Amino acid sequence: MRNNIKIIGFDADDTLWVNEPLFRDTEKKFCTILKSFADEETVNKELFRIEMQNLEMYGYGVKGFMLCMIETAYSVSKHHVPASIIEEIIKLGKSLLNEPVVLLDNVEKVLQNLSQSYTLIVATKGDLLDQERKLRKSGLGKYFHHVEIMSDKTVKEYSGILHHLDINASNFVMIGNSLKSDILPVLELGGYAIHIPYHTTWIHEHVDERIENPKFRSVQEISELETIFNHV
Amino acid sequence: MRNNIKIIGFDADDTLWVNEPLFRDTEKKFCTILKSFADEETVNKELFRIEMQNLEMYGYGVKGFMLCMIETAYSVSKHHVPASIIEEIIKLGKSLLNEPVVLLDNVEKVLQNLSQSYTLIVATKGDLLDQERKLRKSGLGKYFHHVEIMSDKTVKEYSGILHHLDINASNFVMIGNSLKSDILPVLELGGYAIHIPYHTTWIHEHVDERIENPKFRSVQEISELETIFNHV
Repeated sequence: MRNNIKIIGFDADDTLWVNEPLFRDTEKKFCTILKSFADEETVNKELFRIEMQNLEMYGYGVKGFMLCMIETAYSVSKHHVPASIIEEIIKLGKSLLNEPVVLLDNVEKVLQNLSQSYTLIVATKGDLLDQERKLRKSGLGKYFHHVEIMSDKTVKEYSGILHHLDINASNFVMIGNSLKSDILPVLELGGYAIHIPYHTTWIHEHVDERIENPKFRSVQEISELETIFNHV
Repeated sequence: MRNNIKIIGFDADDTLWVNEPLFRDTEKKFCTILKSFADEETVNKELFRIEMQNLEMYGYGVKGFMLCMIETAYSVSKHHVPASIIEEIIKLGKSLLNEPVVLLDNVEKVLQNLSQSYTLIVATKGDLLDQERKLRKSGLGKYFHHVEIMSDKTVKEYSGILHHLDINASNFVMIGNSLKSDILPVLELGGYAIHIPYHTTWIHEHVDERIENPKFRSVQEISELETIFNHV
């Protein structure tokens, strides 16, 4: 692989820094707030249903998540949720936006190392401002030649990025924790992809497929990339 | 000007298509919903205060606007707003997201004409997904070499775009309705800028300045660009 690769693309949330556990934690608090109306399972199920229903309209990110929590609150309360709970939900969302960025183990060391021999980019989905803010807080900006914040991560968007970077798919590798968003579309385009599973994955990102593709690899953690890419 | 220009940048909202009147219309409906709690002036004032307070956290766009309307509702109702009103606010926001895109007069004709001699780009701020959707609905995508959706429009972001396009500011002209976002930062970088005022401007975009700069022009409507840029 390493002889072909010119550009390495990194997903951000749960590949470079902790993200999904913060959402799970917020959902837990959200269920506690609503516990007089419904149990945790019911609330979580309704929240996911409403998120999927609104996904095309809101896209990914915290603001859409906040609006979906509010909609879930009046749904599970049968339209009786008091204003005080809506306020608590907005506070929960604002805390999520203000969370510090916690890098995953060895991320900075690996980026520093790989950036000496390769062009590194970030390809992430989510709210524009929120992802820019997280990248700034992470202090990792200096390792990346380009940051692409995408409304979705399908073949179409990756194809646009490759065109924009003026590079063939066979000279590009994407690294990330989501098979659906980081791996499958890039393999479909003929690029390389390396999966680094994360312990917590949003159900919407789940894929039931076993991937059989010579351009695909799976590693346990990011420091293994040094062995894959370094010329010994 | 026209001999220097290689790339023409266009703002989108209220330069290519109608935007601000849709927000004003939504605000009017929002004030009607809350009229049992406060008069229109009080609601609008509180909404603007909350928007400014949250701007750094939410950025520009409809989802942040929805969250600010909700916060305004519990603020002006002294925390007594019923769930039914929160639902109406979410409906108002969703309608705004689903509005058809209405092009301003002569926009398509002018883009068609200018795209034959110049590279055209869009530089707009707002929600990523929402701006992409509006561009798709507008049918104008084919005229643009590049679309940049920005979290803000200051010297910093324009400088990044020029770098990215590999072009000097003196070969770039920006066209838009906001002196603050489309004109002043580009002039500061040494680029050209053409102001096309729009009848409705968000108060946050107001500028009290008189611009004296040989690289600045103001026109009444977009079709005047043909006279400015066409080689006779």
